[in-house]
Amino acid sequence: MTRLTRRYRFSASHRLHSPALSDDANRALYGKCNHPHGHGHNYILEVSLTGPLDEHGRVADRAALDGLVETAVLGEFRYRNLNLDVPEFAHLVPTSENVARVIERRLELGWRNAFPGPAPRLEKIRLFETERNIVEK
Amino acid sequence: MTRLTRRYRFSASHRLHSPALSDDANRALYGKCNHPHGHGHNYILEVSLTGPLDEHGRVADRAALDGLVETAVLGEFRYRNLNLDVPEFAHLVPTSENVARVIERRLELGWRNAFPGPAPRLEKIRLFETERNIVEK
Amino acid sequence: MTRLTRRYRFSASHRLHSPALSDDANRALYGKCNHPHGHGHNYILEVSLTGPLDEHGRVADRAALDGLVETAVLGEFRYRNLNLDVPEFAHLVPTSENVARVIERRLELGWRNAFPGPAPRLEKIRLFETERNIVEK
Amino acid sequence: MTRLTRRYRFSASHRLHSPALSDDANRALYGKCNHPHGHGHNYILEVSLTGPLDEHGRVADRAALDGLVETAVLGEFRYRNLNLDVPEFAHLVPTSENVARVIERRLELGWRNAFPGPAPRLEKIRLFETERNIVEK
Amino acid sequence: MTRLTRRYRFSASHRLHSPALSDDANRALYGKCNHPHGHGHNYILEVSLTGPLDEHGRVADRAALDGLVETAVLGEFRYRNLNLDVPEFAHLVPTSENVARVIERRLELGWRNAFPGPAPRLEKIRLFETERNIVEK
Amino acid sequence: MTRLTRRYRFSASHRLHSPALSDDANRALYGKCNHPHGHGHNYILEVSLTGPLDEHGRVADRAALDGLVETAVLGEFRYRNLNLDVPEFAHLVPTSENVARVIERRLELGWRNAFPGPAPRLEKIRLFETERNIVEK
Repeated sequence: MTRLTRRYRFSASHRLHSPALSDDANRALYGKCNHPHGHGHNYILEVSLTGPLDEHGRVADRAALDGLVETAVLGEFRYRNLNLDVPEFAHLVPTSENVARVIERRLELGWRNAFPGPAPRLEKIRLFETERNIVEK
Repeated sequence: MTRLTRRYRFSASHRLHSPALSDDANRALYGKCNHPHGHGHNYILEVSLTGPLDEHGRVADRAALDGLVETAVLGEFRYRNLNLDVPEFAHLVPTSENVARVIERRLELGWRNAFPGPAPRLEKIRLFETERNIVEK
Repeated sequence: MTRLTRRYRFSASHRLHSPALSDDANRALYGKCNHPHGHGHNYILEVSLTGPLDEHGRVADRAALDGLVETAVLGEFRYRNLNLDVPEFAHLVPTSENVARVIERRLELGWRNAFPGPAPRLEKIRLFETERNIVEK
Repeated sequence: MTRLTRRYRFSASHRLHSPALSDDANRALYGKCNHPHGHGHNYILEVSLTGPLDEHGRVADRAALDGLVETAVLGEFRYRNLNLDVPEFAHLVPTSENVARVIERRLELGWRNAFPGPAPRLEKIRLFETERNIVEK
Repeated sequence: MTRLTRRYRFSASHRLHSPALSDDANRALYGKCNHPHGHGHNYILEVSLTGPLDEHGRVADRAALDGLVETAVLGEFRYRNLNLDVPEFAHLVPTSENVARVIERRLELGWRNAFPGPAPRLEKIRLFETERNIVEK
Repeated sequence: MTRLTRRYRFSASHRLHSPALSDDANRALYGKCNHPHGHGHNYILEVSLTGPLDEHGRVADRAALDGLVETAVLGEFRYRNLNLDVPEFAHLVPTSENVARVIERRLELGWRNAFPGPAPRLEKIRLFETERNIVEK
């Protein structure tokens, strides 16, 4: 089995704030990421898939993967406010952990369409919010 | 003369939108950076100063420079929405060029206080909005 | 005046070999870069232009610059063999210095079309052949 | 068990083209990587090995690993055309997946000679063709 | 389960020298890293922990992890000579493998205090001595 | 005129301490860089030279420059303690400014030998002590 990883970038803004908590509790929990008007990041997304090599020496067609990531994620996340522009975050705080979770679900939903065969398999995603805060699923 | 450059980072959000233009004109001009709810970046700021070496082999005291940049810029920009949280951008579109201009002015205003002597001199600032969009003044 | 720099990438192959020299002289001069079947690089190209800020807070329209670089350079260099696919190198050895020179000329030729006004001005280009071999013009 | 990873670089060219397919099929399959005269990359190779620490606090002797990678891989790949200069690719398309496979086999072949003892073990290799196309085995 | 990785930096010096060996044997074993007065590095430390997401969408509180790493490691390693300033290396050669081992133990010792609950778990640390010499535990 | 820049790396240790000052004054001036047993860095050195292109399309012979930098600088700085192993720092505090000054002088001294002709000219050196502390001369 071989693992192929592709790296993508998108710039977006977000605010960490839970409607279930008081303003004070939000501030205590999320600190400066709770500032009322939000802030943003140049996110880096790595998508890793594994499988055997096909007869053409490839784990997967790059164009199929790039197309899936564009359609399922980047096209809606890029240059957007995650809280206000991405439906999943209407009721889910866009921590880097949750952003990774939402991206993973979206890729899983579109996977079969992009890769109709038994392989490759989506193995993991890695999301860099900054160069020092990284989440993997 | 020797040039010293220090590198800083801050994450912030912004939206490119001019109140003097129609919505259509804004969209045509600023493209995806005009999306209504904004987006954000991990900005990298480099501050360069020049001068002769002092008797201790230094162009400038690092702590004095770091303190100035923290007080004049980072403390108000970090984890903030530039349009709504930084006064200069109430009436100035926060393009990377304008963000660099505002940072330069703020550093110039505080310079004499941080560096009372004739040297060093603020030579230039460089602002990376992303790794592929860089502005220098 | 403000300087705007945009960063681009392209992968290409080349071989350093001068038809005016013997095989031995070529090997002595260009060393391993003279290997008969060539090699390649992930080139990084930075294009810097300067000018005053326009009424919209910009030195230049990013789309105009990106379009020029795509048309004049990347579209013909990307995933190509510089010696065989780019006409200028039929009789010019594609050292990193010469590649930078050719890119500069191509940008100058298309400049007026992309930027009809008096500003911005093409200030310099920087070409990274590898992370440790960099040429500027 | 501890994992040690060493990073190496080499610049090479290649062309993705399968002699078993028509020109049209090759173009459809490999896209711009099928351009007739090839292109190239600054490859980054990471070699990871694992084992217990020896009495000197090391998983492995760095010089032994560097020597093996130089002899088995870099000396023949660096500044070369993979299709024409590396025997394995006479009949194997040098996709990044296949390049990783060939490198792995070469390291395995020379392993016992470089590391005669029971440890360390070659755990995996990672090959960056570009910063956004990465293969692991 | 989700993995969170945080990245830290510290500059320190060290010398690879075993008191159990002769000077000649030390030189043969550790090469240039055995030079008598030592040398140094900008170390990069990545700490990875895993666990389920809590009700606030987080694997772990960043401040708790940063505080632990600062107290247990960085505060004593930063701008120090590892051999002379960090007690564990009085009788342990500070190879990158051993530095990683000591860091891991220190984090394990303070873990329960920083994270009193059943999760998250310290999964691994990764230490970059240079960009080409990396150790994981 | 074209500028060629080559990038080199070396790991070394140093301590900022002036024998002309009291221990307290040293601590106040150099802070944590004054810790008694020193610390270290992975220094990055960039050497830039300019000149016209020669008949072979090059500003300078890379091997001549690499050889000069190796002989004049890297061979004596790499894996060394700057204060104790490099003669110039017996009486000169190895701040990054002074390290850059010493490197510049050494390159100037050997220049004529490496480049006997009228060109190229040593234009500047840039020294990264860390990614956020950079000195140019």
